Amino acid sequence: MSRDICIYQEFLTEAHKDRIRETARRTGFTPHFFDLEQFDEAADCLQHCEVLYAHSPELLRKAPAALKWYCCSFAGVDPYCKDPGLFANPDCMLTNSNVYGVTIAEHVVMVTLMLLRRMPEYEEIVRLHSWSNQLSIRSIRDNEFTILGTGDIGRHVAERMRGMGAAKIVGLSRSGKPHPAFDQVYPISALDDVLPQTKILVMALPGTAETVHILNRERIALLPADAYVINVGRGTALDQKALADALNSGKLAGAALDVMDPEPLPQDDPLWDARNLIITPHVSGNMTLGYTCDENVARFCADLENYAAGRPLAGLVDRTRGY
Amino acid sequence: MSRDICIYQEFLTEAHKDRIRETARRTGFTPHFFDLEQFDEAADCLQHCEVLYAHSPELLRKAPAALKWYCCSFAGVDPYCKDPGLFANPDCMLTNSNVYGVTIAEHVVMVTLMLLRRMPEYEEIVRLHSWSNQLSIRSIRDNEFTILGTGDIGRHVAERMRGMGAAKIVGLSRSGKPHPAFDQVYPISALDDVLPQTKILVMALPGTAETVHILNRERIALLPADAYVINVGRGTALDQKALADALNSGKLAGAALDVMDPEPLPQDDPLWDARNLIITPHVSGNMTLGYTCDENVARFCADLENYAAGRPLAGLVDRTRGY
Repeated sequence: MSRDICIYQEFLTEAHKDRIRETARRTGFTPHFFDLEQFDEAADCLQHCEVLYAHSPELLRKAPAALKWYCCSFAGVDPYCKDPGLFANPDCMLTNSNVYGVTIAEHVVMVTLMLLRRMPEYEEIVRLHSWSNQLSIRSIRDNEFTILGTGDIGRHVAERMRGMGAAKIVGLSRSGKPHPAFDQVYPISALDDVLPQTKILVMALPGTAETVHILNRERIALLPADAYVINVGRGTALDQKALADALNSGKLAGAALDVMDPEPLPQDDPLWDARNLIITPHVSGNMTLGYTCDENVARFCADLENYAAGRPLAGLVDRTRGY
Repeated sequence: MSRDICIYQEFLTEAHKDRIRETARRTGFTPHFFDLEQFDEAADCLQHCEVLYAHSPELLRKAPAALKWYCCSFAGVDPYCKDPGLFANPDCMLTNSNVYGVTIAEHVVMVTLMLLRRMPEYEEIVRLHSWSNQLSIRSIRDNEFTILGTGDIGRHVAERMRGMGAAKIVGLSRSGKPHPAFDQVYPISALDDVLPQTKILVMALPGTAETVHILNRERIALLPADAYVINVGRGTALDQKALADALNSGKLAGAALDVMDPEPLPQDDPLWDARNLIITPHVSGNMTLGYTCDENVARFCADLENYAAGRPLAGLVDRTRGY
């Protein structure tokens, strides 16, 4: 009996496809490749497949009960965990791709420096062809970071800030389990105690029921007025209206949001024009970076070998936990 | 006989002054502090001083032949080397303050990431409240850097890029002397061979006769069309008109200039509006960062101890070489 894999991705190069073909051949599988325009063809093929490599809740909804493994090429799998009805086979394994740490951490370093070095204000000065240049700035060196989420993304951020001389890096996670990238890791329940001492808050949390508005209006008010907030996890994790109010009233020094709720952010949302806010349209983890795409394929192939050999999958998600 | 120091600086806090007073007391000196508005008072006091700590060619011009050491709080001492007539005492020692590596390197990391991650274009998209987000980006990880100038600034840049996973870091210096921060260091004479292989060119050169227009029109043409140029040294080091032409015609992917020629850049200079050019008004090495100011005072005090003991000064500049 043929063991088939349905692959529905837009980012694969010929080299990526060759690598998948070679791994599939070696492990006894046949891969079938579809572009995003070929939804119907992919859905037809999927009917006799046991593995799907994609990032499409719509396509997953078409999968038969025989589907045993859905490899999602994204890191955030909230759409799949919130709606268990998506899986015709309740025991279908879900894996995600934790390969976005490098690119998202580079984004965080960039916006951190843009905030500390007053780039929103300097860009306005430059737009006016002016030469004012005495704004007080701060440095990553000797600075302190509070990172909400100690997973792949949080760790890559911590390593880079450490490399640039950060004095202290505190992590917060559900378990509070220590990790060498952080000076200390606290459980999320300690958040209210940590916020008043926070200088730069980096939010890299998955989208789960527990993380919705975890940074609410009351917690934003706990941050010092010279603190910065950076969110690269999920837009739902903070109260956008409260953040904009804090920025516009000078109760927060600045913020950088790569994720919003909803996305796209509506054209007339007042958030666009909040003071000292750097907005990017959910680009920090884009698959427009070669490294991210290469790693994505490499992780899928490694887990395909695990799957074929009956070993546990490295990227396995706990669907009840949500990550 | 009283041994006097004239100090003419705007950035000193009371803690800085206390530190200087304490070092001076211990080494047998009396410091006299002046704000920038007190030029005439500083010039009067200077007549009986043997040391001047400032960054003012105008004040230095008022110094008597008895001045033995001018400690310049800036790194770039081109104004003092180009005009030897500034020194009434031809044997007066000149030191500079190589304390700007941290802040300038953080600036370079910031603009490098802004260029690689297409921020000039994304900022325009965000200005229109739009949500387009599929621009192809690049990463510091696995990337290659060519750093013109292997001094304090070039080394701090190299260390940070290394820490973020750069694959190769080549330096160029007058001597070509190896340094552990770089995979290879070539003499400046190899520049024409290095430019065609360059992905990201960081220029951190002092302003000397040899560095004027070192990146001229012909050399800009040697760079690949997908290369980036970053200049944090002196504006005179590149041909601005040729750089703008290359950017506007798509022969260069982008650039970031923190230094210009002249400064301020005239309001109607076409450089302001060159394509994919990030302009900042000479802020990368500003003394608006506490760390830079603290280090500046620490280096002055350390050299004051050297001076008092008759030891060589750590920051001594070769006035004929220019750095």
